Amino acid sequence: MADAPSRASQRVAIPAGRFDDAPFIRACRRQSVPHVPVWFMRQAGRSLPEYRAARGPGSILDAIAQPDLVAELTLQPVDRYGTDAAIFFSDIVVPVAAVGFGVDVTPGTGPVVAQPFRSRDDLRRLRPLEPEIDTPYVVEAVSQLAATLDVPLIGFAGGPFTVASYLIEGGPSKNFTKVKSLMHSDPKLWADLMGVLTTMAVTSLRSQLDAGASAIQVFDSWAGILAPQYYESMVLPFTKRLVAEVETSHPGTPTILFGVGTGELLPLMATAGTSVVGIDWRVPLDEARLRVGPDRAIQGNLDPALCLAGWDVAAEATREVLARAGRAPGHIFNLGHGVLPETDPGILEQVVELVHAEGRAGVEETIQEERP
Amino acid sequence: MADAPSRASQRVAIPAGRFDDAPFIRACRRQSVPHVPVWFMRQAGRSLPEYRAARGPGSILDAIAQPDLVAELTLQPVDRYGTDAAIFFSDIVVPVAAVGFGVDVTPGTGPVVAQPFRSRDDLRRLRPLEPEIDTPYVVEAVSQLAATLDVPLIGFAGGPFTVASYLIEGGPSKNFTKVKSLMHSDPKLWADLMGVLTTMAVTSLRSQLDAGASAIQVFDSWAGILAPQYYESMVLPFTKRLVAEVETSHPGTPTILFGVGTGELLPLMATAGTSVVGIDWRVPLDEARLRVGPDRAIQGNLDPALCLAGWDVAAEATREVLARAGRAPGHIFNLGHGVLPETDPGILEQVVELVHAEGRAGVEETIQEERP
Repeated sequence: MADAPSRASQRVAIPAGRFDDAPFIRACRRQSVPHVPVWFMRQAGRSLPEYRAARGPGSILDAIAQPDLVAELTLQPVDRYGTDAAIFFSDIVVPVAAVGFGVDVTPGTGPVVAQPFRSRDDLRRLRPLEPEIDTPYVVEAVSQLAATLDVPLIGFAGGPFTVASYLIEGGPSKNFTKVKSLMHSDPKLWADLMGVLTTMAVTSLRSQLDAGASAIQVFDSWAGILAPQYYESMVLPFTKRLVAEVETSHPGTPTILFGVGTGELLPLMATAGTSVVGIDWRVPLDEARLRVGPDRAIQGNLDPALCLAGWDVAAEATREVLARAGRAPGHIFNLGHGVLPETDPGILEQVVELVHAEGRAGVEETIQEERP
Repeated sequence: MADAPSRASQRVAIPAGRFDDAPFIRACRRQSVPHVPVWFMRQAGRSLPEYRAARGPGSILDAIAQPDLVAELTLQPVDRYGTDAAIFFSDIVVPVAAVGFGVDVTPGTGPVVAQPFRSRDDLRRLRPLEPEIDTPYVVEAVSQLAATLDVPLIGFAGGPFTVASYLIEGGPSKNFTKVKSLMHSDPKLWADLMGVLTTMAVTSLRSQLDAGASAIQVFDSWAGILAPQYYESMVLPFTKRLVAEVETSHPGTPTILFGVGTGELLPLMATAGTSVVGIDWRVPLDEARLRVGPDRAIQGNLDPALCLAGWDVAAEATREVLARAGRAPGHIFNLGHGVLPETDPGILEQVVELVHAEGRAGVEETIQEERP
């Protein structure tokens, strides 16, 4: 099986580097851009009426298993907003659900695990992911999108820590007591679980890249609940391996690492090896640049809550983000977390227009200034 | 009414400065201490079986209105753990509830507001607090405690931002969209609301200090959801006024300012004027010292979740907190947030013992080192 050409590679013929000139890819590589590229985390989703119409009331895991629907949902925000990248419509628990761990995604709650991870025996419930067999719909939908899109497609995986937190807590958590207990009281089991989840994330990301994704983002959304010394010793090594293995199989692929509440972790996250570090809304981007250092691009960080406060507020906050990012290359505009479901899509349309216009003005000025 | 001597001052005769030699008060003032003082946020509460037995199933606001019960609940953790301070058993919404805004505290949820704050008209629902009339049970319970306790009693108030967030959101919030919308879209109304809540907090704190509290803590628990530039312009000025007014009426009173997720805000919080800045578990205390500067004591910051991971884990984490705090004066040991309800009180007993023992060893070594 492993030696057979993948169905994705039989199906499509996307030239590698097809989007090397796209502003999003160039910004990931800290190259000059004609305008500041922009996309939104959760841009495909409940804030869009066309999403609600297409999705219907079923489980999100059912929707994710329908490639035509996934392709449609992924394209919707690109068509509406004119974003510089598409984010694949899926969920970070898809791989663990696909190997049969027993995960569902409940509307309004999030991932719910019937039998949470408790002991070494539960490792057996996490067999290796075989994308062509376990998640053929992912491969199929990415292939369809790669053949259709005129902007780069971002594939993604959950960070091993964040996926582990769902498996151990049994669902979304406020205080993360069970995952912290396990990682501190049984470091060997923790390392084994993280190892399995890291390998699964790599396998999933490789299948998305093989099928035509142009970049990947690792959503380690909840890593920010850890103090930095514990993130460094118990999470970061796995993130480093994940990034290194993607780089080995798909050299030069732009990679993004993101979590919320990670102000204290940014200097560490910058060492994980990704091209880009995503910044939540709490850390002004000028400060974020200092923490991340000169070798990574940054992505962010408009407070999604401010998109609900009317256009004047959102516009001012958008301009502030652009100003704090400065005019150096290597900024991808995004929200500081996902689009909130109650967001007016009209506001996001205006944000994209503003970023493209103001970002372009900034870039042109920089070019002027750089001329002798 | 305002000119009449308060019932509290008629009732008790606690000499000012009675606890000036107590380790907690000395640490707040960055004076040398015989051991590192320790108390726990939410030390009185559901983690204690004697609390559950005394409290019964009624509303917490009903319990708070019974001075004898409040005194008992406040004393319980001091008796059990041997903490260096008592924290008054109450709730940050007591003043707004007492003036009739319509707030209840639902078990498992938190404060719930029947008619949230929406417009200027709602300011009328926030008349000035008259402690002797609106919250006589607070004055009475503090007086009882001041006459009984052999450690300092910490009075408290909610930070105006955090109280405002409950009034506007209508309850606990995940994304704080309504409060952010209001503060950005109607800054004048925001300032007026914050002004009213600041005055109310000052009035409540003064009544607690008049009745015999020895120190105060401002719980601006949710301030960390704001980016620093907005905290600085729209919250900090009110916190500064609050602290200044307490200092004017009760000069020299140790004051503490605390919130969670405030890593980015610490340098600003250090300018609010409090004696102490509380640190959540995400910022190692050596880093926190740098952000807070040399003129404030620090309080914290054991991750409360680690108290659920067995004694070995809690002990190691406790030692790490002490080590990162260093041996300079001005450290009050605490958790990085409140005690979790499922905490084994036996673990907290051991934490107190360890802090007192190790903290003392550290202090003695420092004294040795300081000798010529």
